[in-house]
Amino acid sequence: MTRDTMHPRLLHDLPRSLDEEQIDELLRTPSLRIERIVSTGHASAESSWYDQSEHEWVIVLSGRARLRYEDEDDEVELGPGDAAFIPAHRKHQVAWTSPDAPTVWLALFWSES
Amino acid sequence: MTRDTMHPRLLHDLPRSLDEEQIDELLRTPSLRIERIVSTGHASAESSWYDQSEHEWVIVLSGRARLRYEDEDDEVELGPGDAAFIPAHRKHQVAWTSPDAPTVWLALFWSES
Repeated sequence: MTRDTMHPRLLHDLPRSLDEEQIDELLRTPSLRIERIVSTGHASAESSWYDQSEHEWVIVLSGRARLRYEDEDDEVELGPGDAAFIPAHRKHQVAWTSPDAPTVWLALFWSES
Repeated sequence: MTRDTMHPRLLHDLPRSLDEEQIDELLRTPSLRIERIVSTGHASAESSWYDQSEHEWVIVLSGRARLRYEDEDDEVELGPGDAAFIPAHRKHQVAWTSPDAPTVWLALFWSES
């Protein structure tokens, strides 16, 4: 593992605009995967829900976003430092991300053994 | 789990000064522990090394810090968005944290099964 992968800088080298979300895998071990996700105004299609077999814990590092859960009426707004724990198979979608500046997420995925 | 623990806000409710580091456990599952650590100028004693049985992955959310590894001469400086993967039993210490503003860390700990 190089110094860069041991010490990634998540708020550096941000794309200014993107056709799709950019996902960079920062670490993968048998137990845990860590990703940086950069969104620029992306949102899920209204009928499209994430239904994941892994647990997810996500935190916004910069920008703003709103999460929507299939089982909850209110959306959850997230700014810098705000996190969400999304248990496996809790259906959710990204309702909105700020269109004017990139939204940088740190996302963890893991399965219970 | 309440809405607060599902959606913690890590840059809110920061202490202005602390005698000791403040550690808040945000999530604990059989596989993974997530903590928020707030330091205000704290550093390890020079002869005191962390030697952990778990892997650690840490990211600075606000403030500044320097990490030192026993097996490396150069310190690693971390600002907002900068992370470090510290494999189990790699001896390390916190050489410095900014004394003027709190340094907020997100820290993950896990064991490989």
